Amino acid sequence: MILTVTLNAALDLTYRVPHLRPQAEHRVPPAVERPGGKGLNVARVLASLGHETVATGLAGGATGETVRTLLAETTVTDEFVRITGPTRRTVAVVDASAGDTTRLNETGPDVTPAEWAAFDDRYTHLLRDARAVALCGSLPPGVPVGAYAHLVRAARARRIPVLLDTSGEPLRRGIAARPDVVKPNAAELAALTGTTDPLRAAVAARRRGAHAVAASLGPDGMLALTPDGTWRATPPKPLPGNPTGAGDSAVAGLLSGWAEGLAWPERLARAVALSAATVAAPAAGEYDATMYERLLGQVKVSPLSPSGA
Amino acid sequence: MILTVTLNAALDLTYRVPHLRPQAEHRVPPAVERPGGKGLNVARVLASLGHETVATGLAGGATGETVRTLLAETTVTDEFVRITGPTRRTVAVVDASAGDTTRLNETGPDVTPAEWAAFDDRYTHLLRDARAVALCGSLPPGVPVGAYAHLVRAARARRIPVLLDTSGEPLRRGIAARPDVVKPNAAELAALTGTTDPLRAAVAARRRGAHAVAASLGPDGMLALTPDGTWRATPPKPLPGNPTGAGDSAVAGLLSGWAEGLAWPERLARAVALSAATVAAPAAGEYDATMYERLLGQVKVSPLSPSGA
Repeated sequence: MILTVTLNAALDLTYRVPHLRPQAEHRVPPAVERPGGKGLNVARVLASLGHETVATGLAGGATGETVRTLLAETTVTDEFVRITGPTRRTVAVVDASAGDTTRLNETGPDVTPAEWAAFDDRYTHLLRDARAVALCGSLPPGVPVGAYAHLVRAARARRIPVLLDTSGEPLRRGIAARPDVVKPNAAELAALTGTTDPLRAAVAARRRGAHAVAASLGPDGMLALTPDGTWRATPPKPLPGNPTGAGDSAVAGLLSGWAEGLAWPERLARAVALSAATVAAPAAGEYDATMYERLLGQVKVSPLSPSGA
Repeated sequence: MILTVTLNAALDLTYRVPHLRPQAEHRVPPAVERPGGKGLNVARVLASLGHETVATGLAGGATGETVRTLLAETTVTDEFVRITGPTRRTVAVVDASAGDTTRLNETGPDVTPAEWAAFDDRYTHLLRDARAVALCGSLPPGVPVGAYAHLVRAARARRIPVLLDTSGEPLRRGIAARPDVVKPNAAELAALTGTTDPLRAAVAARRRGAHAVAASLGPDGMLALTPDGTWRATPPKPLPGNPTGAGDSAVAGLLSGWAEGLAWPERLARAVALSAATVAAPAAGEYDATMYERLLGQVKVSPLSPSGA
């Protein structure tokens, strides 16, 4: 199975309004509720690609129960550890006229040292059957900032491929533990390395310890620096739509390809096609399966000269 | 006891942001959660005034459970009827720099005929011990639009004073069933009667069937047309603050005064003082008890000439 870790799970609430007017009162239909947090998005995509997928992390309170109830409606296996603090909410208000989204992301629950230790036990246990691991998203208060570094080392010690997708200090610490892949977006890469040129930034990120860097560059596709070579993967054309979850679909593409023994160019083609099919889907964070199949053959994967890297 | 009815209860979520920027992502502390819906606000104020208070209505889903958990932390007795559909949420985003609030109010759950019948049984049972009844707020989908008219008649048949605080068609139907008091605000009164002059509109509303009309006029206080006389009650000065829940505090003031056998002028003084103390309180929907005690003697209640009415 593929294991995904979501330490700061979320109950995602999405509202659609014809026009968001600050200061005004809006009468709206009930929120669309989804299990959220990057790792859970990755898990859903992996499961719909047909992979046996186990999701672990921390969940608590009434919001945590709702997340788990929603997860039970999918084929993802729930191995979350229950905590006392309530799972955070995210609120997205989609403005239909402007075509944009206003977001409120709660920081997350306070996690006790005992809860973090219980998670660590569960994670170690789950690693036994894992063929690949995705560590995704922010850390809730109380979880040590070096948490991802610790989890990366545990997977690496068992020779299980581990992908890290986070930002800020948790990324900085985690990358030093030498994960197999990091998947930053352009902004995260620039924040980590201090340079905005994606190729130079990816080179700098790799020097910090990641075996491979697969950077998602929005409508421009992905750039990957790996032990096997350097590639740029681009979708046939930029697709209009909602980019929510596109990066998580890319992670699912990379990791499923890895678990299936595909080479880097095929992993990248899958990641970029899934990502584009997510942008094009009507619901945020879902992907359009027909479009994914169609795009898969159209993604262009070009080797870059090693001198560039 | 005093009975409050909240057919469309809510889980009120309040976020505070330094500055609400449409289209942007905001990292926010966890929402402040409160049991909401006008009837529950009224119940909380009645309870803090020392009245034995029973809250009934409809509640369902994970959000309904959270509302009931929060209600259990108060002295209000929970007599809600459980339904299948999930209790709605309201989301308030308070912009600290602008001092204003943007609101999203969900419409509410679908209520089945069997659930509505179960509520009617519970309500009839609870009326036995009720000294006064408050029927407050909007109706969720599935509840007949004439629901309040039916509930007014049931209370009136048992000679229990009943106050109705709603809007639109449910108010139009409910008022025809001859409640003891309706408490519209200026906008609701204008929508009901087609006239924006509060006194003329109150006269017209009373002709539609209410024994008394107590209209809340924001910072101008209240205007009451009753079988005992006509009064205007004004606070000593307009208070700055958040008007959320001020109307509900006014309802609690009127109803508690009624249950204690106070005359109309004293009920109005209490309603206006509570309302002003709610606007002045730091948290939305709470009232400042010290300020309430101080304002109570400062509210000016003036009889209006019957010719005006």
